[in-house]
Amino acid sequence: MPSLPEPLLELIAVLNKLPGIGPRSAERIALHLVQTDPAFAQRLSQSVLEARQRIRECSLCGGLTERDPCRICDDPHRDTSLICVVERAVDILAIEKAGSFRGRYHVLGGRISPTNAVGPEDLRIADLEKRLASEPVKEVVLALGSDVEGDATSFYLAKRLASGVRVTRIAHGLPAGAGLDFADEVTLSRALEGRREIQ
Amino acid sequence: MPSLPEPLLELIAVLNKLPGIGPRSAERIALHLVQTDPAFAQRLSQSVLEARQRIRECSLCGGLTERDPCRICDDPHRDTSLICVVERAVDILAIEKAGSFRGRYHVLGGRISPTNAVGPEDLRIADLEKRLASEPVKEVVLALGSDVEGDATSFYLAKRLASGVRVTRIAHGLPAGAGLDFADEVTLSRALEGRREIQ
Repeated sequence: MPSLPEPLLELIAVLNKLPGIGPRSAERIALHLVQTDPAFAQRLSQSVLEARQRIRECSLCGGLTERDPCRICDDPHRDTSLICVVERAVDILAIEKAGSFRGRYHVLGGRISPTNAVGPEDLRIADLEKRLASEPVKEVVLALGSDVEGDATSFYLAKRLASGVRVTRIAHGLPAGAGLDFADEVTLSRALEGRREIQ
Repeated sequence: MPSLPEPLLELIAVLNKLPGIGPRSAERIALHLVQTDPAFAQRLSQSVLEARQRIRECSLCGGLTERDPCRICDDPHRDTSLICVVERAVDILAIEKAGSFRGRYHVLGGRISPTNAVGPEDLRIADLEKRLASEPVKEVVLALGSDVEGDATSFYLAKRLASGVRVTRIAHGLPAGAGLDFADEVTLSRALEGRREIQ
């Protein structure tokens, strides 16, 4: 029985690897792409490549940026005495959307997870300590997820950083077990406002 | 307020145009793409381009193919006396998956729709008539949708083609595995009209 042409099968296979795209959606999108305006396929192809090539990590905070240091780290109106620690670069965007945080950021790159063999040395904690030593930081706000590993990482950081600065954590406005990317702006704003000292 | 870097915004905008991809999914996929293995972004970009460039319409049936004529039109084991008329190229795949049709296909490219200003001359009907004149076709099976426009197009084609060949239409009735309680009135009416003797 004839099946789909090979380039189409390959396209479906690749699309199927994207987050949230199952086999049916991948097929639908692929069929759309091969029948649509060639200029659109060209534009998609180009923008994937360009975004991947031009977006990099900020050498200071680890956020996604086109230029280094990123616009947030480089912004003179940002409060340099405040650093918000997040797990992933995309978490910065969630907090920026909420719009109530005026400090700067630091991306950990994950969280301590013994089951996934992720220890403190795998995270950007040493970089954070360097920043604390060289920047006029007074407070570190931990904005990690509120599940077990997020909690563990927060407590670890609170202990490790406590000597030099005030370490706070965003409030439990976050629904338990959910990541930052699913929280709405109001919840995130309240969580930021309600941050408390880790004792 | 700093927002996303421009190449990322562009990628999100393009992804958002794909069928079934809303703004949230587009953002999620874009963020995944700029942080994933560069080789994967390269592969996606490449396969979009390649599929769009290498997949074309078969000059005979109008189906999606890499070579012209397509594998189905070119297959000597296919029944050349039977042509199944479908709306879109992707419909061929649905019927091929079912695996019970051994004839060949013809893609109309749409259906007659006065509200969308699609008339008979916008469809590949003349091409179909050419094929009927040159190929040993005995029966044309209309496999169009069962809504108002699909019905109208089927009736139009039946009338226009009737002089030379037998024109049939695929049965409309209960979907396999469904109970009566889930069938709507139109489906039930058609299932009753289309009843057949049990042999």
